[in-house]
Amino acid sequence: MRPASTGTRFLDEVREYVRQDLMPSHAEAGEPPTPAQREFHLRGLSNWWLPEKYYGKGLSLSESVDVVSELAYGDAGSAFTLFISILGSTMVSLFGAEDLKDRTLRKTGTSGGFSATLGTERKAGSELGDIATVATHTSGQITINGDKLFATNADFADFLVVIARSTENRLEHLAIVVPRETPGVRIVKRWKTFGLNSAATYQVSFEDCRVPEAHALRGPGLLLLEVGLNASRILIAATGLGLSRRIRDMCLDYARTKQLRGTSLLENPVFAAKIGQMEMQIDAMRNQCLAAAAEFDTLATRDDGPAELLSRGALRSAVAAKMFCGQTAWQLAGIGSEMLGGLGYTDETVAGKLLRDARYISLVEGGDDVLKDLLYRRYAKPSAKRR
Amino acid sequence: MRPASTGTRFLDEVREYVRQDLMPSHAEAGEPPTPAQREFHLRGLSNWWLPEKYYGKGLSLSESVDVVSELAYGDAGSAFTLFISILGSTMVSLFGAEDLKDRTLRKTGTSGGFSATLGTERKAGSELGDIATVATHTSGQITINGDKLFATNADFADFLVVIARSTENRLEHLAIVVPRETPGVRIVKRWKTFGLNSAATYQVSFEDCRVPEAHALRGPGLLLLEVGLNASRILIAATGLGLSRRIRDMCLDYARTKQLRGTSLLENPVFAAKIGQMEMQIDAMRNQCLAAAAEFDTLATRDDGPAELLSRGALRSAVAAKMFCGQTAWQLAGIGSEMLGGLGYTDETVAGKLLRDARYISLVEGGDDVLKDLLYRRYAKPSAKRR
Amino acid sequence: MRPASTGTRFLDEVREYVRQDLMPSHAEAGEPPTPAQREFHLRGLSNWWLPEKYYGKGLSLSESVDVVSELAYGDAGSAFTLFISILGSTMVSLFGAEDLKDRTLRKTGTSGGFSATLGTERKAGSELGDIATVATHTSGQITINGDKLFATNADFADFLVVIARSTENRLEHLAIVVPRETPGVRIVKRWKTFGLNSAATYQVSFEDCRVPEAHALRGPGLLLLEVGLNASRILIAATGLGLSRRIRDMCLDYARTKQLRGTSLLENPVFAAKIGQMEMQIDAMRNQCLAAAAEFDTLATRDDGPAELLSRGALRSAVAAKMFCGQTAWQLAGIGSEMLGGLGYTDETVAGKLLRDARYISLVEGGDDVLKDLLYRRYAKPSAKRR
Amino acid sequence: MRPASTGTRFLDEVREYVRQDLMPSHAEAGEPPTPAQREFHLRGLSNWWLPEKYYGKGLSLSESVDVVSELAYGDAGSAFTLFISILGSTMVSLFGAEDLKDRTLRKTGTSGGFSATLGTERKAGSELGDIATVATHTSGQITINGDKLFATNADFADFLVVIARSTENRLEHLAIVVPRETPGVRIVKRWKTFGLNSAATYQVSFEDCRVPEAHALRGPGLLLLEVGLNASRILIAATGLGLSRRIRDMCLDYARTKQLRGTSLLENPVFAAKIGQMEMQIDAMRNQCLAAAAEFDTLATRDDGPAELLSRGALRSAVAAKMFCGQTAWQLAGIGSEMLGGLGYTDETVAGKLLRDARYISLVEGGDDVLKDLLYRRYAKPSAKRR
Repeated sequence: MRPASTGTRFLDEVREYVRQDLMPSHAEAGEPPTPAQREFHLRGLSNWWLPEKYYGKGLSLSESVDVVSELAYGDAGSAFTLFISILGSTMVSLFGAEDLKDRTLRKTGTSGGFSATLGTERKAGSELGDIATVATHTSGQITINGDKLFATNADFADFLVVIARSTENRLEHLAIVVPRETPGVRIVKRWKTFGLNSAATYQVSFEDCRVPEAHALRGPGLLLLEVGLNASRILIAATGLGLSRRIRDMCLDYARTKQLRGTSLLENPVFAAKIGQMEMQIDAMRNQCLAAAAEFDTLATRDDGPAELLSRGALRSAVAAKMFCGQTAWQLAGIGSEMLGGLGYTDETVAGKLLRDARYISLVEGGDDVLKDLLYRRYAKPSAKRR
Repeated sequence: MRPASTGTRFLDEVREYVRQDLMPSHAEAGEPPTPAQREFHLRGLSNWWLPEKYYGKGLSLSESVDVVSELAYGDAGSAFTLFISILGSTMVSLFGAEDLKDRTLRKTGTSGGFSATLGTERKAGSELGDIATVATHTSGQITINGDKLFATNADFADFLVVIARSTENRLEHLAIVVPRETPGVRIVKRWKTFGLNSAATYQVSFEDCRVPEAHALRGPGLLLLEVGLNASRILIAATGLGLSRRIRDMCLDYARTKQLRGTSLLENPVFAAKIGQMEMQIDAMRNQCLAAAAEFDTLATRDDGPAELLSRGALRSAVAAKMFCGQTAWQLAGIGSEMLGGLGYTDETVAGKLLRDARYISLVEGGDDVLKDLLYRRYAKPSAKRR
Repeated sequence: MRPASTGTRFLDEVREYVRQDLMPSHAEAGEPPTPAQREFHLRGLSNWWLPEKYYGKGLSLSESVDVVSELAYGDAGSAFTLFISILGSTMVSLFGAEDLKDRTLRKTGTSGGFSATLGTERKAGSELGDIATVATHTSGQITINGDKLFATNADFADFLVVIARSTENRLEHLAIVVPRETPGVRIVKRWKTFGLNSAATYQVSFEDCRVPEAHALRGPGLLLLEVGLNASRILIAATGLGLSRRIRDMCLDYARTKQLRGTSLLENPVFAAKIGQMEMQIDAMRNQCLAAAAEFDTLATRDDGPAELLSRGALRSAVAAKMFCGQTAWQLAGIGSEMLGGLGYTDETVAGKLLRDARYISLVEGGDDVLKDLLYRRYAKPSAKRR
Repeated sequence: MRPASTGTRFLDEVREYVRQDLMPSHAEAGEPPTPAQREFHLRGLSNWWLPEKYYGKGLSLSESVDVVSELAYGDAGSAFTLFISILGSTMVSLFGAEDLKDRTLRKTGTSGGFSATLGTERKAGSELGDIATVATHTSGQITINGDKLFATNADFADFLVVIARSTENRLEHLAIVVPRETPGVRIVKRWKTFGLNSAATYQVSFEDCRVPEAHALRGPGLLLLEVGLNASRILIAATGLGLSRRIRDMCLDYARTKQLRGTSLLENPVFAAKIGQMEMQIDAMRNQCLAAAAEFDTLATRDDGPAELLSRGALRSAVAAKMFCGQTAWQLAGIGSEMLGGLGYTDETVAGKLLRDARYISLVEGGDDVLKDLLYRRYAKPSAKRR
């Protein structure tokens, strides 16, 4: 069994990586995976959540919260690039055939590789029930056709997990593992985004793309995706935690150098009040991420984990974590960007980058309007589900 | 050892009490302890956090979070009345001489009695370093003189814990256990408050009030108070959780009966969005309370618990819990009171009561301005303390 | 013609009344119209917006903004009682037959009397299209039957303006002037409200209540009501202005007496920042009220005023004024109630009263959900209406 | 005298310019003054606020509010570039010697030229009392030495207005007109900013820069600046108005094309509620800008205008306008950027540009912390100044 200190030691190594590689370098320089991101693998840190047999570290989601927070402290785009494969690997790990699992996860683990999960489409938006990408079963194979709007890491991923509608049954959806090099997979373009510049999100099309039937994960595709999103939403929330810690420290660093009416800004009560409020919010963000991660870990390590997770789908705590950290990090980024005066509007500070990065949390994997509705229908309206 | 299910069973009994005694009755009727509050003791539920040898149930602070949430769901004033003795009993329990502990806690435990803790004064406000109540040592006794502004439960408490300045040393403060019946203890008045009508807060004066020296708790008085406040602040935060759950359910109950443009308000997307956001906030409140309580429990049950707690004083997580739940419950109470239309302004609904009650959280045991400053100085400004 | 200084002189008299009669007395003592409210008439100030021929002062709505702000500074409930007759009198004045106008307005003007307007019903809520109160034409008379939920001033009003559906045509609504003493008018109860204790709102029923046909105002009833609501909503908004000014001054008065860390709270930067923000918001509230009032005045004094107002219905500026001042006053009341520490929760300060009173603005004459929808459909969705 | 319709006609021309030149072109392309900005002059629209004798249009500040709102609707950076010269020209116009006025304003007017005003320094920040740029009188000339942090338009301006401290008297400050081509004026760099990409802000240094004594404006420099800032702050606020209108329309345009659960997003109640709230806020922003501008116009056109403006300094309404519009536009930009889903994070929409641009309002010409303090000390603390 893994000694309890593994997580702590790993976290120290991540901190060192952030300090030495991510923060000094221009973290956003280069095409993803950037040199700084490749260094993460060279240090033996990549895909830390995978079991050791797949060359990961076997860290739990709970332990991953602080890992991602540290990475996002350095650069949220790199954090996103380095952890978002967890969405696909969780789906494969829980619902893939043993052989598929071995091939895909082992490869990713060895190479420090990536995976991408493709749900959203232009017309369907967050309503995945309406997607137009279709999968057709033909003689032991599945053929995929369609166009996916946003897929982070897709170009340089080892494999893609594609959500498609069955041509046999309009109401049935599949989640299918598609190796990146499969003929018919085409990168339409890389999106130019408002922030998260060191992450790369692509539009991807599938034209008569064929994979063996065993590449379909077991279970209804949309629900499998919901299960996987629990893991990724919690870590997206954790980037909000890391960004918020960075915002706080940016303000404190600035205050240390700034005089106001003859004393250090550090001694200014208005400044103190703002940072005190941030400190409270940071604590609440972290505890929400940790509680959500602990719930997921508990379920995932049960003998009937996959079944239980399927029966629950999107967990209240995971959805709440992303909403809460997204709203809070955005609020803090706004306050932080005002604290530096006019300099906060220039590239002499990271205030602008933190604003741009913090914006993504509420926009990916379900906007707040969608998630409020989900929480309402699943957990508030049915009185038995309320707590 | 206490079986793990004790907490769950106790919580069920509390739910039954709330449903049968607190909600149907006019919870705010009668002088505190009201008939409904006395019933809590008759059901054998009072002072549940005390060890079994003092006739409590030995429940942890973590387990107390949901207990208080349920009580506050029924009536926040009664919840406050029934748990706030934990402030004094925690101080006595951790820092009192064995004999003092036995006498005071056992009595309270048997009788379902109360205690009150007296810090705030009119001039000193939240700056307890400036208090004017003094304690003088004379021949094995301590004599107390002064006037305390706010003391909940004081009139019907078994004992009071009084914070006083030493006449021998202006910079030294004491925390002294004063039995309620001690000559010289005078209830100046009961405050008429904006809400929390079923709780009673008094102004109390001390005139040549004498107690044995052994009634002084061990350690610097202001720090002992800080330690005790960790427990009470977390449970005050938990009343915000309970109030918020009640607000949500009040809205849902109203929506069930209300038609809007031909369909139930329950199906209205604007309504759904508001409740979905509340559901998220409720989850975050609960997880913050639980995390803070777990931190306190872990420290308190260490062998060196009292010393360790003294060295830490006000815990970040406990302070954050009160701030976060106070701000959030107030926000939700405002939104809830708008959701019921004009009826929300009348006594036909509890919207007004919930607003009045929710206001107290941010006002007792340190306003947000004071607590922001505390978090800033203790946990944000010193870089080693940041997380 | 009225000299330009009339408004200024009148405002001075109102200020004197507030200082001498409204603030020192317990403004909320007595049944409305309270002694302090009757004094307003004795000073010759009542119904100031009526033309001089009806014994008013002929003040414009623009001039009324500061008048109401001053009254609400003293007591919002009294302000509401003293100005809300403007809703009914505006409807009568613009759309009533000359004879009806003369009788009703002259009477009200002479006696310092009141009127009430009755729209809301229990089932219909803000959707007045669904009201169940019906009006039947029979031999030169109109017979009214139904039950109205909220009607401020109704018990002691000279006349009521009742919105009813025509029994002849379900889609037609009437606005009918009903003298208070008409047989069949019954006060069901006075509502117990969260705040605004010196105003009285009643539930009223109509049983075979008969008035001459000439009591029906000219035009579609719901639209006539919309026109009248422009005036009352702007003045309701102005109570938010007055309440906010009072909140600011309450904080400043408190700060003058309060020491914090050895200096006056007046010198505390956090306090200064909060009040500075309030000052900004107060300025914006006043300018919004004045702009909306000026728009209404301009339309109302045109030769084709009544027709033009009918064609516009609810004015964007008036709706925006009520929404903006309601949201802002509520926010300020919350901040103000925290500024006074624990004392803000007691009856030693007016913080609680101001909170209770400030809550009403967003709840009467259309909640924000209703008004947001109205602004959206009327002014934002049709691109030609956008500004 | 100028016919009353001049303003309306001018506004139409500006709308046409925005539609034809600013919106279709990539408004941010090219170094400022960009081709689109130069086109503004070619159409005869530049420096519209200057009197006709200086080849302006003589439009009032009130009329300028909607002009700037329209420009910012198209591109806030261009709006800022095109109106910010009003700060310097107002100072020159009110406080410059006749001859200086003629030379500088006439030149600017003819050429469609620009001016820049230089206050902020790196150390002094918003506390201009501490600036280190000095002016020395020597034989009829003034010599300037120092370094100014932020100066928009400086590189391509006709003249600069420089705030400097007198070497003769530390407590005296001067506002000095310095022609751009004066030897010793050096552009240190153009700042790279978070937004407002079509405006250019420079760091500028002065080394033994000599101008005739008559180039010093009459009056204390810091107060002269305060007077000029009234005009520019109101127009900066008006860019918030224009940006907010653009955000609203961007959302409505998107909604027109977007289906949600089988109907247009335009019919979605949650969408409607958000836009309805925006519509209210837009109305309040505009009315605050107009009220502030009217106050300035009234003062500026009085015979004793310059003296009266000097005695008042920063006007409450102007400061409030910038604070209010800055806070509100930022809030709306955040909401708007969430309304477009994931596409709002990409360059397929202008959501990101609007966010970046909206951020500047609260950061230039005094951050909110500085302005809250100013309002507090000038208008709230002295009870005679309160309204």
